[in-house]
Amino acid sequence: MKDKIITISREFGSGGRTVGRKVAEKLGIPCYDKEIVEKVSIESGFVKEYVEEKGEYLSASGKMSTLFTLHHLYSNMSNEDIIWSAQVKVIKDLAAKGPCVIVGRCADYILRERDDVVKVFIYSDEDSRAERIVRLYGEKTETPEKRLKDKDKKRSSYYQHYTDMEWGNPRNYDLCLNSGAIGIDKCIDIICTLEE
Amino acid sequence: MKDKIITISREFGSGGRTVGRKVAEKLGIPCYDKEIVEKVSIESGFVKEYVEEKGEYLSASGKMSTLFTLHHLYSNMSNEDIIWSAQVKVIKDLAAKGPCVIVGRCADYILRERDDVVKVFIYSDEDSRAERIVRLYGEKTETPEKRLKDKDKKRSSYYQHYTDMEWGNPRNYDLCLNSGAIGIDKCIDIICTLEE
Repeated sequence: MKDKIITISREFGSGGRTVGRKVAEKLGIPCYDKEIVEKVSIESGFVKEYVEEKGEYLSASGKMSTLFTLHHLYSNMSNEDIIWSAQVKVIKDLAAKGPCVIVGRCADYILRERDDVVKVFIYSDEDSRAERIVRLYGEKTETPEKRLKDKDKKRSSYYQHYTDMEWGNPRNYDLCLNSGAIGIDKCIDIICTLEE
Repeated sequence: MKDKIITISREFGSGGRTVGRKVAEKLGIPCYDKEIVEKVSIESGFVKEYVEEKGEYLSASGKMSTLFTLHHLYSNMSNEDIIWSAQVKVIKDLAAKGPCVIVGRCADYILRERDDVVKVFIYSDEDSRAERIVRLYGEKTETPEKRLKDKDKKRSSYYQHYTDMEWGNPRNYDLCLNSGAIGIDKCIDIICTLEE
């Protein structure tokens, strides 16, 4: 696996980000997650918080932002489209540097033409995810179930919009691991030992 | 894994049956596949060939058989329902005997109330599956693509009809492995080493 690029798509609260980081640590390769947001921010000109929100989530209605920016003077692209284009460039550039783990952001789709990519989907049952997000991110006004549903819906819509494929359909991945059932450590082991 | 029951759902041509048999061999536990057909045949009174067809496949239209049998004198159950009931009993009885591998036949759903079941889904891309079915089962008048589509449709309809769940949705399984991408041997290794 040391010569591969590993993309990790994940349901919110499934621990996919942790899986990605620990796989990278064990394999001694970089893990790109928040770094992508920073690079896309520089590339697109939008602030990081905006990139983070718009680079993976589409509002449930599927509507794009109508916020007017200078970009609109030069093209018909929405802000989301500009961020998407920057994200495609950043992810392709990072992959070109060599083996790595990339968490989220449709990297499986963006790198689909490479033959050295292992595509993983991490998911879990709702109870485990609800427990995890409350433990990691604290209580909010909305119930954890509502937070999960909203995030899933927005990630799924975003993926569908830009890839024209179904998010979480196993046929788009090489392996799909239920972290709630088999445990996060086992997910890490399975991914690391794939090419042993 | 030696103390677990492993259920393997699989797409036609994905090699899931081979994976199941070899996992059982490696773990030294029984693999139930064709044996289920024999037992259901005895339990239900239908011949094996009929059980094999009706115990996993629903016609694409979703219609049940209207063949009149003696069973219909005593109940309003269709032949498929009678076979399903026998299959539920046979699979629960086999699971009660101890650790084993069970291939297909909605065993993941039938055993859903047990907490010692590992649920696996094996799938693959269409090209790998088409190549495999021609190699194993020979050429037929229908194209391999048509044969795959028909079998998938019937298995999916059957699963949906009796479980009210979506066949191949990763959330119904503990892990989903793309045998075309990672190879059949790696699928076997991953399942065998899950509990090491």
